[in-house]
Amino acid sequence: MYVNESIKDLYRVKFHEDRANVLRLDMNESPEGLPLSFVEEVKRQITPEFLATYPQKDRLVQQVSAHCGLRADQITITNGSDEAMRLAFQCFGERGKKVVTVTPTFEMYGVYAAMFGMEHVTIGYNADFTIPVDQLLASIDETTGIVVILNPNSPIGVTYTEDEARAIIEKAGTVGALVVIDEAYHYFYEPTFMPLIAQYRNVIVLRTFSKLCAIAGLRVGYAAGNAQLIDYMEKAESTFNVSNVGLLFAEEILKRPDLMEAQRKAEAEGRGWLTEQLVKAGYQVLSLEGNFILFKPKGNAGDLVAALKKRGVWIRDYSSGMLAGYLRISTGCLDYMRRFWDAFTVVEE
Amino acid sequence: MYVNESIKDLYRVKFHEDRANVLRLDMNESPEGLPLSFVEEVKRQITPEFLATYPQKDRLVQQVSAHCGLRADQITITNGSDEAMRLAFQCFGERGKKVVTVTPTFEMYGVYAAMFGMEHVTIGYNADFTIPVDQLLASIDETTGIVVILNPNSPIGVTYTEDEARAIIEKAGTVGALVVIDEAYHYFYEPTFMPLIAQYRNVIVLRTFSKLCAIAGLRVGYAAGNAQLIDYMEKAESTFNVSNVGLLFAEEILKRPDLMEAQRKAEAEGRGWLTEQLVKAGYQVLSLEGNFILFKPKGNAGDLVAALKKRGVWIRDYSSGMLAGYLRISTGCLDYMRRFWDAFTVVEE
Repeated sequence: MYVNESIKDLYRVKFHEDRANVLRLDMNESPEGLPLSFVEEVKRQITPEFLATYPQKDRLVQQVSAHCGLRADQITITNGSDEAMRLAFQCFGERGKKVVTVTPTFEMYGVYAAMFGMEHVTIGYNADFTIPVDQLLASIDETTGIVVILNPNSPIGVTYTEDEARAIIEKAGTVGALVVIDEAYHYFYEPTFMPLIAQYRNVIVLRTFSKLCAIAGLRVGYAAGNAQLIDYMEKAESTFNVSNVGLLFAEEILKRPDLMEAQRKAEAEGRGWLTEQLVKAGYQVLSLEGNFILFKPKGNAGDLVAALKKRGVWIRDYSSGMLAGYLRISTGCLDYMRRFWDAFTVVEE
Repeated sequence: MYVNESIKDLYRVKFHEDRANVLRLDMNESPEGLPLSFVEEVKRQITPEFLATYPQKDRLVQQVSAHCGLRADQITITNGSDEAMRLAFQCFGERGKKVVTVTPTFEMYGVYAAMFGMEHVTIGYNADFTIPVDQLLASIDETTGIVVILNPNSPIGVTYTEDEARAIIEKAGTVGALVVIDEAYHYFYEPTFMPLIAQYRNVIVLRTFSKLCAIAGLRVGYAAGNAQLIDYMEKAESTFNVSNVGLLFAEEILKRPDLMEAQRKAEAEGRGWLTEQLVKAGYQVLSLEGNFILFKPKGNAGDLVAALKKRGVWIRDYSSGMLAGYLRISTGCLDYMRRFWDAFTVVEE
């Protein structure tokens, strides 16, 4: 029987561990989530008939486009920003062409490159953890299909200037390549390249409700781009691709800028406090532009992850590449950061 | 800029109407939904931290495989059965080959055929609304990539015998074609071809929680097949493709066979009652094996749909093909069927 060759040998990481009731600082979710009173209030709208009804995205499309200062036809709502990545590659990723990203970066871009038969070209960071933008620009040529930039990048939270972004988009434009700008960590870092979609026809900006908006479990994200690109992406989407409970929570969150600002402030306070403790204790801290902190511990990173896991605190370590030996901690409100620090200072002894 | 040719000209139906607070009998959802007490009980598990956590499918995979009498590696959970269709076509649909279905059938199979560059071959029903299985078998040849059968079919609820299903699978097997068996309307019609997946390596069975289980809004479905096919489909899926609220409700529903049986009985009673009224009033009724009824009204079908819509009752009509002039009513509990009948008898005058 026929099997798509690009899928046959694809390597996918699978998550089989139950992460309920642990301090989740390993996947850049919001550790504490939304305020209980808000969640309870929104839940009142979840009735038996609501659950039985196929989802309707128009309301959220209107709200997101207003939120982003765009027209409704420049926005599509997706099942997390992950589905937006897949749709971008499925629609605009030409088999045999190249996908350019920095490395390390979010792993799914390499997966989607392979899934759609593209070659993944990776540009290493400079030794000082800056991005060699000249090298990135130089790698864009006639063989390039898609360039992906994360602003800020993950897991090293460096950022691009608007001039750099424009240079990348314009170079990509000359060779007919798409630029995907992933703003998953927007809100933790205010500058955005969203306005560029009105000026360039080869740009898609991705956002998610999984990080600041704290509904990773509900799978809501969106893509912004010129109306023609968005129309193509919607042609390739599944029918009813986002659950109505996800749409409902996203709608209610966008109605509450005060709540979003409180979430932002709480995370900034927690991250500031933890950064201060780490610096005071002599650690070199990287990544100050997302809801995560990278640093090199004194002990073995893998051992520390295992020791913390025994105490119910889940964080992530890196075992290869320029981040080998580093730890990554997802950041949240002060209380959760104190719980991490208390456990960490014991195991790091 | 490159755009995938198969997506560029794809026609997709978009749903822009708000269907809240109407009697929804137009999309074969459950009109009344799950019991309120059950929904309220499950909602208690939805906490801020739960919403902030990426979904974990393992528990539901275990439950579904036990429910189906299969191993866990023979099941994959998908974002509605719609995502399972897309994955099956993306993994096993060879560009340029043919997809064989009857017509009319569920519209998304034609969409996915076109999306993945396949040709859609449609086999018309016989004049007496039976399926010409011999003709379907004869159309399977070396150019065939996928054969889709819905059991019962939608919108005409006819069914296949096990001998017919085996003949189709075996013929498809000889030419290296996949058979997708869509059991969306299982539970309303008990026979299943699920056990065949253990005997044939070219079969996938699809099910959904959107119909009897009444959570269409939460987007949960699954595919069953031999472990190798399921592994390929999981390679092509989005990360975290189903929301954790969807997984939670599906888990709790499967723990309650009494509840599922009560839903089944309530729908059977409502459908039986409405069928009786229609027959008594002289209508010819089709489709007795799903949660829907097809019949030909005395008046113009389109006018009747419009008149009912004004009264808050949404149903569906067919304007072309062998069903031209027919109405389709999604069926549910007696109370909702009485509300339909009261409105219908007024507008049909």
